[in-house]
Amino acid sequence: MHPLFDYVHRYTGTLLSEDEFALLLSHFTYKKIRKKQFILQEGEVCKHFAFILKGAMRQFYVDDSGMEHVVNLSIENWWAGDQESYVLVTPSKYYIEAWEESEVLLITYQNKLKLGKDFPAFNELLQRLDERNTIASQKRITSMISMTAEQRYKNFLESYPYFSERFPNHIIASFIGVTKDTLSRIRKKAATR
Amino acid sequence: MHPLFDYVHRYTGTLLSEDEFALLLSHFTYKKIRKKQFILQEGEVCKHFAFILKGAMRQFYVDDSGMEHVVNLSIENWWAGDQESYVLVTPSKYYIEAWEESEVLLITYQNKLKLGKDFPAFNELLQRLDERNTIASQKRITSMISMTAEQRYKNFLESYPYFSERFPNHIIASFIGVTKDTLSRIRKKAATR
Repeated sequence: MHPLFDYVHRYTGTLLSEDEFALLLSHFTYKKIRKKQFILQEGEVCKHFAFILKGAMRQFYVDDSGMEHVVNLSIENWWAGDQESYVLVTPSKYYIEAWEESEVLLITYQNKLKLGKDFPAFNELLQRLDERNTIASQKRITSMISMTAEQRYKNFLESYPYFSERFPNHIIASFIGVTKDTLSRIRKKAATR
Repeated sequence: MHPLFDYVHRYTGTLLSEDEFALLLSHFTYKKIRKKQFILQEGEVCKHFAFILKGAMRQFYVDDSGMEHVVNLSIENWWAGDQESYVLVTPSKYYIEAWEESEVLLITYQNKLKLGKDFPAFNELLQRLDERNTIASQKRITSMISMTAEQRYKNFLESYPYFSERFPNHIIASFIGVTKDTLSRIRKKAATR
């Protein structure tokens, strides 16, 4: 079964017919992305959101001192893109890089709007996704405002159990907003309990 | 003109007819909230989202040591609620308190879903809102991960110009994740430039 077919079914309970699914798929462009290749770079407009069929992506921001800060990580059945640049057609502040050899389905904002209008199941999918995104963002903001580094790491493992197998320590440390040394210390402490 | 009518028009470009607007409004419950009254408390399920007609709300989290952390602030024409608890029907981790005498329109999740299905303009409104929310959350996460306290405050003033007139220093400090003393120092430094 195609991953996108499964995905729509899982989020909305809808089993699309063969024709419906072909029509849905025709709004996307398939692309292979080599490891270390960028699907978005700072200053570019984010013209597509990417549904990840295979692989892993990291979205990061480079501050004035040249330091990289990981703001998002995504793997199979997740989306990668910069919503602000995509919706408002403004230059992005972010880079999005394939962390592994990846395969994606790209969709333009116009096609996303079109699918949302013409396709009740896709519209419902977008709503469920937006809800989940809002929940995840709220959790992350709360954890950053109010939790210790140790609690943040625990939270991360619970919320994203697969990430620690796919991304190295320094990426995870940046994602949860702690230094690499702090993360090593927390992991050692956890291992000796 | 009713604030909700204006709001739908501003976000979607749709001018609802009198009948349509009456139908839309019939899915909400009007409520006055006294200053310091809670519309949500930790452990409760968030049964309603509140569209704020008048007043101001703050959403906060109380950590294990009893310290309050402000995760959201909202004023007129904004929404207040805990999305996770509202969608997943789980006990909330948050308190939402009226910071001023307020008037709100409450909507249940079932009614929100119903309106989204039956009312194209409301459906579009929800989509535009979710997009803006995702953008705002992403900006806030990026600022927390990568910016100094000073940059975070500058960012806050640009993103939420009205908040500093409505909420006191200690609330704003908590919202941007700095101590009250740090915020005072930043403000003094900015004033002497």
